[in-house]
Amino acid sequence: MTGSLTIAGLGPGDEALVTPEVSAALDAATDIVGYAPYVARVPDRAGLARHPSDNRMELQRAGEALRLAAEGRHVVVVSSGDPGVFAMASAVFEALEDQPQWQALPLRVLPGVTAMLAAAARAGAPLGHDFCAINLSDNLKPWTLIEKRLRLAAEADFAIAMYNPRSPSRPEGFARALEILNDAGCGDRVVIFARAISTSKEKLETVRLRHARPEMADMRTLVIVGNSATRRVGRWVYAPRQVR
Amino acid sequence: MTGSLTIAGLGPGDEALVTPEVSAALDAATDIVGYAPYVARVPDRAGLARHPSDNRMELQRAGEALRLAAEGRHVVVVSSGDPGVFAMASAVFEALEDQPQWQALPLRVLPGVTAMLAAAARAGAPLGHDFCAINLSDNLKPWTLIEKRLRLAAEADFAIAMYNPRSPSRPEGFARALEILNDAGCGDRVVIFARAISTSKEKLETVRLRHARPEMADMRTLVIVGNSATRRVGRWVYAPRQVR
Repeated sequence: MTGSLTIAGLGPGDEALVTPEVSAALDAATDIVGYAPYVARVPDRAGLARHPSDNRMELQRAGEALRLAAEGRHVVVVSSGDPGVFAMASAVFEALEDQPQWQALPLRVLPGVTAMLAAAARAGAPLGHDFCAINLSDNLKPWTLIEKRLRLAAEADFAIAMYNPRSPSRPEGFARALEILNDAGCGDRVVIFARAISTSKEKLETVRLRHARPEMADMRTLVIVGNSATRRVGRWVYAPRQVR
Repeated sequence: MTGSLTIAGLGPGDEALVTPEVSAALDAATDIVGYAPYVARVPDRAGLARHPSDNRMELQRAGEALRLAAEGRHVVVVSSGDPGVFAMASAVFEALEDQPQWQALPLRVLPGVTAMLAAAARAGAPLGHDFCAINLSDNLKPWTLIEKRLRLAAEADFAIAMYNPRSPSRPEGFARALEILNDAGCGDRVVIFARAISTSKEKLETVRLRHARPEMADMRTLVIVGNSATRRVGRWVYAPRQVR
């Protein structure tokens, strides 16, 4: 029996944002592998084996998924949002590089609605002009690189989507990020704090950057800093298409 | 009768990538407004009015959609991909700003799978680390700004997703973009040319940037330039999570 590995994105939370392609893959799976809260989002059924794991176990989890697929199982690795954006897909390819015997396995990556798109849609259209996405976690890269990217992103006048802005183990980074952007002249920019969009815990808050406080974000918050032209119309925030 | 306006993303092409949320909105619509090829993707049914329009008519189209909603119709404005990424959402908010009497209309933006996510999934995980998205069309912004952003994106070592790289009316820009990135020391970077992903015209090509030729892209191509650490494993391309 030939197994397979599918790396799938569950979207930001609402089941109405799971693509039919991903739903079909979940229906056909024998095994679901992923961070426990995401595995818990997959509907239960007879014969489906679940392999939840803790946060920060990405590489071990990827290896487990590949091993199961090599044993003939039909494995789906689940991430929230899109699996390719600060999620499990890169970890699976790292594991695959370490273990070339697994490279012949049938492998697919199924895209999903990543957090910044769901957040942007709820707020209006803050990503309607050029933008960047920066993971604010310094678990896997030096903080100096994050600082450099923030400064260059401000200079480029990108809208900036910040993933994983703040966690109990990294309380300082986001405060520093706001300082850097204030120092870079972005104090007047519109900032959107989008928490747990499309779930029952959803919360959306918009302020000028100079009034943003670190406590407005946690690990379930996606922060979007507008570009210099981003503005409000009624309750909405959007980036005009035209720049002169 | 109170009308409504929904701005929805149809995803990159495959119907299996349309979210259930968007499908439900299309089923409930009285009117579909959009660029003709996208309107044509919406299944026909009795009583559904279709309002296709030409390319570059975004603002007029947005006004038409708002006018129909103000008349009591349930209007869905369709874009391919995600409506907030270089698509119709910003144009609708611009029209809304011009005509404040429409700001009381019920309005929703429904996210979708944008082209860079579909392209990245097909190629592997080239957006697994920090990245940016740049629209290479200079219809609505000066080319000098695009050049500046490309240089800063290279300096920041972002992966770079390029939307609308090349069209018959703008044959030179993409060639110039490749030159700029070569000059910025990105010649060894992996470049992915992802054309019409998830459609019957799908084509995926990967080369080093120094070997990339302008003719490899057209208006249906999404180009992703990897960061300096992006590499291949088997037929896949991915950005490692860790940077030292």
